[in-house]
Amino acid sequence: MPKPILTLTTDFGLSDHYVGTMKGVILGICPQAQIVDISHEVAPFGITEGAYVVAQTYRYYPKKTVHVVVVDPGVGSARRPILVEAGGQMFVAPDNGVLGMIFAREKHKVRVLSNAHYFLKPISQTFHGRDIFSPAAAHLAAGVSPAQMGKRIDDYVRPEFASPVRTGDRRWTGRILKIDHFGNIITNFCAADHPGLENGRFSLAIGSHRIHLLARSYAEHGPGELFVIAGSGGYLEVSVNQGSAASVIGCKSGGAVELSF
Amino acid sequence: MPKPILTLTTDFGLSDHYVGTMKGVILGICPQAQIVDISHEVAPFGITEGAYVVAQTYRYYPKKTVHVVVVDPGVGSARRPILVEAGGQMFVAPDNGVLGMIFAREKHKVRVLSNAHYFLKPISQTFHGRDIFSPAAAHLAAGVSPAQMGKRIDDYVRPEFASPVRTGDRRWTGRILKIDHFGNIITNFCAADHPGLENGRFSLAIGSHRIHLLARSYAEHGPGELFVIAGSGGYLEVSVNQGSAASVIGCKSGGAVELSF
Amino acid sequence: MPKPILTLTTDFGLSDHYVGTMKGVILGICPQAQIVDISHEVAPFGITEGAYVVAQTYRYYPKKTVHVVVVDPGVGSARRPILVEAGGQMFVAPDNGVLGMIFAREKHKVRVLSNAHYFLKPISQTFHGRDIFSPAAAHLAAGVSPAQMGKRIDDYVRPEFASPVRTGDRRWTGRILKIDHFGNIITNFCAADHPGLENGRFSLAIGSHRIHLLARSYAEHGPGELFVIAGSGGYLEVSVNQGSAASVIGCKSGGAVELSF
Repeated sequence: MPKPILTLTTDFGLSDHYVGTMKGVILGICPQAQIVDISHEVAPFGITEGAYVVAQTYRYYPKKTVHVVVVDPGVGSARRPILVEAGGQMFVAPDNGVLGMIFAREKHKVRVLSNAHYFLKPISQTFHGRDIFSPAAAHLAAGVSPAQMGKRIDDYVRPEFASPVRTGDRRWTGRILKIDHFGNIITNFCAADHPGLENGRFSLAIGSHRIHLLARSYAEHGPGELFVIAGSGGYLEVSVNQGSAASVIGCKSGGAVELSF
Repeated sequence: MPKPILTLTTDFGLSDHYVGTMKGVILGICPQAQIVDISHEVAPFGITEGAYVVAQTYRYYPKKTVHVVVVDPGVGSARRPILVEAGGQMFVAPDNGVLGMIFAREKHKVRVLSNAHYFLKPISQTFHGRDIFSPAAAHLAAGVSPAQMGKRIDDYVRPEFASPVRTGDRRWTGRILKIDHFGNIITNFCAADHPGLENGRFSLAIGSHRIHLLARSYAEHGPGELFVIAGSGGYLEVSVNQGSAASVIGCKSGGAVELSF
Repeated sequence: MPKPILTLTTDFGLSDHYVGTMKGVILGICPQAQIVDISHEVAPFGITEGAYVVAQTYRYYPKKTVHVVVVDPGVGSARRPILVEAGGQMFVAPDNGVLGMIFAREKHKVRVLSNAHYFLKPISQTFHGRDIFSPAAAHLAAGVSPAQMGKRIDDYVRPEFASPVRTGDRRWTGRILKIDHFGNIITNFCAADHPGLENGRFSLAIGSHRIHLLARSYAEHGPGELFVIAGSGGYLEVSVNQGSAASVIGCKSGGAVELSF
């Protein structure tokens, strides 16, 4: 029988004990768990980035995988911890929108994590990743049913960042979801929504830069030329062959992107 | 039967092959081991930081876990490799104080790792993580008894950083154990030792900054306000809501902290 | 029966979903796989660094380990994906020289990965780590034979960086393979090729610095003194006790190193 898989996505970084402590809690409750790190380098408090990273990843995991997502600027405040069932998998996270792209893609049921039987005691005010999310996820991975964790709710947070806004006949304002490690600028424009994109017949603007060039692979254009490419996750990205488009343009995660024809 | 758990804490960083090589050595000796990374981003040669990270983590791991701690500025010199049994778990590390906070918290037995039968050959002068600590830990995880590894010793290194020093009737000098990924300043003042801490009735000084404000959660105070909070590990921390207290104050790991009433 | 081991070495960094997605693909195909990260912090597009990291590591892994190496500036171009059998292990990587140091050390058979049955569909132009290398490696780990993956080839890329060039009677020009996390400068001079190295009787030059000092361990010389040491991987390295030799000298990966007697 395959081992239960449990993934971790946080903004905790890798220099502290936080992630290692969560893993200890998980293995203490569910020793057979296979724990997989997705990323712990989500920008601190970066809910949009965290949402994007999780939404890119879960589709490639087997059914029944439990995803733990802790990007949690409101830890210790009134924000609720939630459990989401979607796409045959489970997600535990704070109710702050970090699962918003899952909501947009999949039918889902949301529960509030309220059964303290599945938490560590005492619960700190500053580290719910250790005290609430990890133990709840480990119990789920070990076979506890979602219904035992808490009641269904409908008033969970649905964030705005998932889609661009139409601002004209042939004009949209989107935003930068993430700058990746290579400096590729990942926008929230779905490539599939713009099948008519053709070389020289569109304009994608970030700051004072206007890009009209399209590419199918990174190696297609010469060094230094900015181009738009349909990225591996299905979004339009701005890239430079073997360079950092974000450094060339000087832009940041969350910034505006204008697409027009 | 649960698989033996083996954790790794080092200052090796993640850009080199060092950690990956240690894992190969471990899996070659103990293929059933579940290897867990605690952190490899301890500051280079940061014995205090390493001691703090390990002491925060081990309590959340199951009995019999083997913790490998390699922060080892004296590799190749006369410093000894040691094996510590404490809290039902095992620790292998250089004898340089990096297990000092374990000594302060738990009854412990210390042995020198001297049985070369459990090392790789030849032993390099520069990478004992690969040649001594990993193979010894893997043999322990596979069931070799500590007594086979070497003799008990009592003259191991006990470091000074574990506790603040009383410098007046109602005044103590402590130090900064670590700046975490979010910029929280973690001091070595135990929250439990100062139960009388009340808003406005204490002063915690770092450099020219004096903090009189207390919080129970990060989200309690407004942006930019420095406050003291009892962190998840039991120490007093200095924080700013959604910002970096260390950047605001401009301080470093190892720096002095004055607490007075 | 031990679980199949599958290692990952990439230049993807840890802030994105790329590595987490590859692991999902692998576990979907080979749920029993033990996935081990070697490094994901190879410099972007750093073929020499990737080649060095993999060559340092594989020797410590058990037979039958499958190593996935994705440093792939030419993704989406005509460069081929390959499978290499060497040293009782397997390697999948782009055919761009990143396995060059394996070729130099081990007898090897090279195949082109051409059987699309073992790839994800559709294959993107930008993320072959997910669509080609991970699924092929997972099928190999699950027991598919190399011969089913594609035909043998002989015209694979053999890079130049593996060895220094002799430029005089007692003079060689080598290069810097990598600057490690501690700032040690790792050259491509094999210590075993220069057994006559003696204190004060050689000169190793990087930029305007000339080093004549030898050490057996990092702690042997005083702070600030540059010395040459036979590193744990068998290459000559330039180091400073508890400091960064690369910062002192101001050099980079790929730079030239002159050795003379």
